[in-house]
Amino acid sequence: EVEECVKEWEDLVADYKRLEVVSKEYATKLEEVGELQAACLKEINHQKYRMSVIVSAMKRLEKKGVTKDDRIANLEKEIMKRKAILHEIKATLPKQNSLYLRIILGNVNVSILNKNDKFKYKDEYEKFKLILSAIAFVFAVANLYIDFRPLQLILLFLLVWYYCTLTIRESILKVNGSRIKGWWRLHHFISTVVAGVLLIWPQNEPWNIFRHTFMWFIAYISVVQYMQFRYQSGVLYRLKALGARHNMDITIEGFHSWMWRGLSYLLPFLFGGYIFQLYIAYTLYSLSYHPDATWQISYLAALFLTLHCFNMYTILQTLRKKLQG
Amino acid sequence: EVEECVKEWEDLVADYKRLEVVSKEYATKLEEVGELQAACLKEINHQKYRMSVIVSAMKRLEKKGVTKDDRIANLEKEIMKRKAILHEIKATLPKQNSLYLRIILGNVNVSILNKNDKFKYKDEYEKFKLILSAIAFVFAVANLYIDFRPLQLILLFLLVWYYCTLTIRESILKVNGSRIKGWWRLHHFISTVVAGVLLIWPQNEPWNIFRHTFMWFIAYISVVQYMQFRYQSGVLYRLKALGARHNMDITIEGFHSWMWRGLSYLLPFLFGGYIFQLYIAYTLYSLSYHPDATWQISYLAALFLTLHCFNMYTILQTLRKKLQG
Ligand SMILES: CC(C)(COP(=O)(O)OP(=O)(O)OC[C@H]1O[C@@H](n2cnc3c(N)ncnc32)[C@H](O)[C@@H]1OP(=O)(O)O)[C@@H](O)C(=O)NCCC(=O)NCCS
Ligand SMILES: CC(C)(COP(=O)(O)OP(=O)(O)OC[C@H]1O[C@@H](n2cnc3c(N)ncnc32)[C@H](O)[C@@H]1OP(=O)(O)O)[C@@H](O)C(=O)NCCC(=O)NCCS
Repeated sequence: EVEECVKEWEDLVADYKRLEVVSKEYATKLEEVGELQAACLKEINHQKYRMSVIVSAMKRLEKKGVTKDDRIANLEKEIMKRKAILHEIKATLPKQNSLYLRIILGNVNVSILNKNDKFKYKDEYEKFKLILSAIAFVFAVANLYIDFRPLQLILLFLLVWYYCTLTIRESILKVNGSRIKGWWRLHHFISTVVAGVLLIWPQNEPWNIFRHTFMWFIAYISVVQYMQFRYQSGVLYRLKALGARHNMDITIEGFHSWMWRGLSYLLPFLFGGYIFQLYIAYTLYSLSYHPDATWQISYLAALFLTLHCFNMYTILQTLRKKLQG
Repeated sequence: EVEECVKEWEDLVADYKRLEVVSKEYATKLEEVGELQAACLKEINHQKYRMSVIVSAMKRLEKKGVTKDDRIANLEKEIMKRKAILHEIKATLPKQNSLYLRIILGNVNVSILNKNDKFKYKDEYEKFKLILSAIAFVFAVANLYIDFRPLQLILLFLLVWYYCTLTIRESILKVNGSRIKGWWRLHHFISTVVAGVLLIWPQNEPWNIFRHTFMWFIAYISVVQYMQFRYQSGVLYRLKALGARHNMDITIEGFHSWMWRGLSYLLPFLFGGYIFQLYIAYTLYSLSYHPDATWQISYLAALFLTLHCFNMYTILQTLRKKLQG
């Protein structure tokens, strides 16, 4: 029977040759891929630089009053197209992490090189938000009915963790080419701070007055989050189906009208949320004159006011761009 | 001058051909790399499976009382070597994220395929810990001299964030093949909870009694962290210089003696830290009988006791293994 073992092993040695070949080829190709990435990046930067020179030359011509002829118009169109293509190629190259990700994760590469995987990642992000909003909803409603400190603390800890996680995931999305606005990421960062400050608000009279309002707010934005989910995943799947490119989403007719329908359904609830934030800021401001008031109250009032203002500003900006677009 | 622009553009179009070629080659190679990864993994699993069959056959032979001859001894050695090689190859393949990382980051690939980059990542992780320990040290000492609530809160928030970040980074290390023990990762998770509970401990008499002890503890473990850093980065650089392989570190003579020298310097301080944890658990237990005591106190006592016990157990385990070598 020892012979049999030896025989088996010898068979396996033959198979191992196969693995050796494959793994050697893999190592070589992996290195080549790295070199090609560097080469691509170099060529892209070259193209970008040369194009910027041409564009500024054209601007100078325009200033001098040279009339735009067909050649210029054509050139402008070509440059537009080329820029879109360069963008597409760049999306398949690994990118450096942002400072925030470098601090949290360190210098690990989180680039997603494949379009399909990018789509999946975004989809998963939306589902993550949905699930956690559902959990937050349940806790918020429970807190409306039950006055039990640990239950409040669980919700607040959950919110700290949730918003913090969102900022990480959104930074990863950003690295992978999402056009998510800086404010939404900052919004989630501020929300982490808000939840953290709520956590250390001592259980005094003002908290007992305020906490119902806050639980209502969490319940409300959880519902809004569900609507946002419907809208965002609608957008996502439609764009995927259309195979749409970055700069060209907006020109697709059917998509455009679908988007506006989705938005007109969503926007009233979003504005409702922002009014709610303003209301909370006002409530907290009033509470800050309460004899038992602690510093948390005025801080939170300021934070909620900030959220309200920037949310309003950003959403109006977004709408303006979409209307022009 | 319009001609010049057009001329420039045409030059650029020629350059663009180059980019087109490179990017096409890149896309193909990238896909091939993916296929080769799958092929490698399949072959590795095949090897592992067949080897396990041979190993169990050999065990059966041993049980039957067949005497170990040269062929068997040789086979065993070959299998050991093969396992080490398979491990090496596997380290160059991307790995699935752990559940924890999937929840925090989502399904983004954090594998580091290159040995040098792995080294750099670990090195950076150690430096990150060092820097944050230094910051924690400064705050802890400041809190010993100044009784200012915001300063305490800043330190506690910093600790929550720091330990939480550590668990993320350590999970990434784990995915990339580090043999870091589950307990150290869990330790940092529990530390996050400890810092979170400290955060919501109301500012009452027991806190005022306890906080000095806690600040001393943070200052102490920051110093220990500095020693750990010296030890760990010593290990890291030595192993890198030796080009040591996973399963063979321990057999390198010079390394072995260096490691023990480092450990004998570090261990007293580590044990000091664990005794400190026990002392804190005891202090908190006594405080839990204070008339103003809140639930946080007994919870924290239990957590510190847990930390003490498992730290002791794990470190003794580690030493035993190292002694057996
Ligand atoms: C107004 C709104 C519906 C517009 O969404 P949109 O049509 O996707 O807007 P844009 O075209 O500017 O989106 C650009 C990118 O940012 C993303 N994005 C936009 N708003 C986002 C948000 N609040 N969170 C995360 N991602 C967002 C989009 O998914 C898109 O990503 P992509 O580049 O990967 O495709 C959206 O910004 C939104 O829901 N905002 C409200 C958020 C909020 O206030 N929540 C709290 C309620 S009180
Ligand atoms: C005891 C100790 C020095 C042993 O370190 P070691 O010689 O590296 O131990 P091992 O050989 O078991 O290490 C295996 C791996 O885990 C890592 N590791 C071990 N302990 C670790 C820790 N506490 N944190 C992070 N990583 C650790 C090692 O770097 C090594 O990584 P690698 O596989 O990437 O090379 C180390 O575990 C330690 O410092 N523990 C104490 C931590 C502590 O209690 N801190 C709080 C003080 S109160």
